[in-house]
Amino acid sequence: MAENSNLRLSRRRLLGGGAAALAVAGTTWGAATLAQADEPSPGQAVVPFHGVHQGGVSTPPQAHATFVGFDLRPGVDRAAVIGIMKMWTADAARLTAGMPALADTEKELAVDPSRLTITVGYGPGLFTALGLQDRAPAWCAPLPSYPIDRLEDRWGATDLLLQICSDDPVTVAHAVRVLTKNARSLTSIRWTQKGFRSARGTAPEGTTMRNLMGQVDGTVNPAPGTTDFDSLVWSDGADQPWLAGGTSLVLRRIRMEMDTWDELDRPARELTMGRTLSNGAPLTGTDEFDEADFTATDRFGIPVIPPGSHIARSHRMHEGEQFFRRAYNYDDPPEGEETSNSGLIFAAFQRDIAAQYLPVQQRLSDFDALNEWTTPIGSAVYLIPPGCEENDYLGSGLLK
Amino acid sequence: MAENSNLRLSRRRLLGGGAAALAVAGTTWGAATLAQADEPSPGQAVVPFHGVHQGGVSTPPQAHATFVGFDLRPGVDRAAVIGIMKMWTADAARLTAGMPALADTEKELAVDPSRLTITVGYGPGLFTALGLQDRAPAWCAPLPSYPIDRLEDRWGATDLLLQICSDDPVTVAHAVRVLTKNARSLTSIRWTQKGFRSARGTAPEGTTMRNLMGQVDGTVNPAPGTTDFDSLVWSDGADQPWLAGGTSLVLRRIRMEMDTWDELDRPARELTMGRTLSNGAPLTGTDEFDEADFTATDRFGIPVIPPGSHIARSHRMHEGEQFFRRAYNYDDPPEGEETSNSGLIFAAFQRDIAAQYLPVQQRLSDFDALNEWTTPIGSAVYLIPPGCEENDYLGSGLLK
Repeated sequence: MAENSNLRLSRRRLLGGGAAALAVAGTTWGAATLAQADEPSPGQAVVPFHGVHQGGVSTPPQAHATFVGFDLRPGVDRAAVIGIMKMWTADAARLTAGMPALADTEKELAVDPSRLTITVGYGPGLFTALGLQDRAPAWCAPLPSYPIDRLEDRWGATDLLLQICSDDPVTVAHAVRVLTKNARSLTSIRWTQKGFRSARGTAPEGTTMRNLMGQVDGTVNPAPGTTDFDSLVWSDGADQPWLAGGTSLVLRRIRMEMDTWDELDRPARELTMGRTLSNGAPLTGTDEFDEADFTATDRFGIPVIPPGSHIARSHRMHEGEQFFRRAYNYDDPPEGEETSNSGLIFAAFQRDIAAQYLPVQQRLSDFDALNEWTTPIGSAVYLIPPGCEENDYLGSGLLK
Repeated sequence: MAENSNLRLSRRRLLGGGAAALAVAGTTWGAATLAQADEPSPGQAVVPFHGVHQGGVSTPPQAHATFVGFDLRPGVDRAAVIGIMKMWTADAARLTAGMPALADTEKELAVDPSRLTITVGYGPGLFTALGLQDRAPAWCAPLPSYPIDRLEDRWGATDLLLQICSDDPVTVAHAVRVLTKNARSLTSIRWTQKGFRSARGTAPEGTTMRNLMGQVDGTVNPAPGTTDFDSLVWSDGADQPWLAGGTSLVLRRIRMEMDTWDELDRPARELTMGRTLSNGAPLTGTDEFDEADFTATDRFGIPVIPPGSHIARSHRMHEGEQFFRRAYNYDDPPEGEETSNSGLIFAAFQRDIAAQYLPVQQRLSDFDALNEWTTPIGSAVYLIPPGCEENDYLGSGLLK
């Protein structure tokens, strides 16, 4: 099943190629010395493709992600979309296993999946284009317009999404190439967003990421594998039977205003977040995962965690106001006189955008001390179909 | 010395922080299990900054590189450039050691250098701007115009260059931010080029990279640490005394025409290169590092390696026609109706561009079967000053 992200060995490895290559090489893998020569290379780590859920949601975040937003070309109908889905499913099943895609012209770039996942999403436009509006939950729609938004069309909603993640950037580039070129007669690319986290091996697995403002980002987050996660993230099909095992994605591109952020000293930054910069602990605690105490006051009666701080404003009002964040940093070439062009590719997964996500986003839009240094410039929502078993294809429950 | 790229431990590690963090975590680092809990994290690997040469030339290529081309703002004089150099030197010495820069506003992003190197280059425009034309070798000039070129101004020559490499993309982003913002009043950014190779740990150290056409790229290359490398790459100061221990860089952005390359089958691709795709062996051999036999013919008398193939045309005519390649892949968001926007950030280091590089480039421009699928769209040359010792700064031999 896709949510089982334990190390598995790819076909090449099972056939002995990986072990042979390692034995011949007889060198170290970077700085980490392998205990034995037949230890698998981290490049051979596989996230199973087939299963109840698609990979790339509960999968521990890989170091690199590319998000590609596609629009259907005019006249593309349901049969054509089924064609795309069958092709993407077949190629994704092979690539994630470390095998070349069916018509792979650069087979050698496919042999190290490095936990490659390929995740397909459907934007509201797909349902409209195919006349399937009644098969999407009512909340599958662009987010309301928020006063904090400075949305740019070039990062807007698209009909289709591919989220392609791997610990190796060459693997990501190859998978993106294979999957986009095979669909180019039926789709056009609206945007490509490239994101990253710390490299594989820099921090122990499970370490919360840091964003480019230096903040620990994503501490309060449902843990994959728990009952909470499953009920918060995966659809049970109550909204739409075909969506059972699927989820939804809110994808927002949030620019960081690094030049003005620079003007803040560390205490001001920590009061803005409500957390320390050193380890992400709430200002009322000492460890990252300490529960924040929003009632604590100092000797003058002033709240230790300011009520307008990011963690105070984003804190859930009840258990249902939770979603699963799986964000990536972006750092693109600056334009014009910009010094930096960086920020966060914010990605939130939840079973119901209206119930879980919108109340929190509304609260943050109404007030969040951090808003002065962050600007949403892109926003899109997708339904993430469930996973599929062998001999089936992604989205079959909706499309067939 | 900077060319000694053995694993060293950063300050944080030496102070025990790294070991403590590891012991507390008690988990695996990615897929590679560490033999002992006090094994250093690969994030703590340091390339020494001070020494005879700058780092980032003989350093085994890190997974990520960002090249930033700067122009001096009007009126910037030698004293101002010395100011930039002192600042960059001080910050680079600290960042490469895993310490925050002097005015670092995101100190926590500095703690894992992951073999960070920061390499400074001077374009011909810098010498002109400072009235130092007589201190640059005559060959420090834009390359001749080649018929194969389709150069775009946006990737052209700049006054200054930073090459920032690390195995961790977050480390690169942070270093780029620190170094560019500190120089923004005196410089403007002309371009930023982001490149990558396989992630740390995917392939054994020393494996030749593959480019996005799937080719093994860089097999015939002087090996750092050998006498050949030293005499081919490092200046002995005969041209210009201040350049002793330095080198030069030809940086070209080479677009890959992936859509037409796709039309070639594997045999045609291999004849174009003169090497196999599977392991990069010359068509007359079986192993990557077998010497190519350009005289071998098949039973019809036809050369096994076509005389117009890339390796035949690029093969040196004499020992002096060699340079050291240290290229990176690029894969940027496609523009307009492009399917891909990818290629190679070609980086060649040599002590003398005219003697070593130009004859080969001229031959490839005259004819190279590969030219049909590759297009140079950017070209710039730089002098790479020697390294410096503590209490000195990069470029002092030229500037003071």
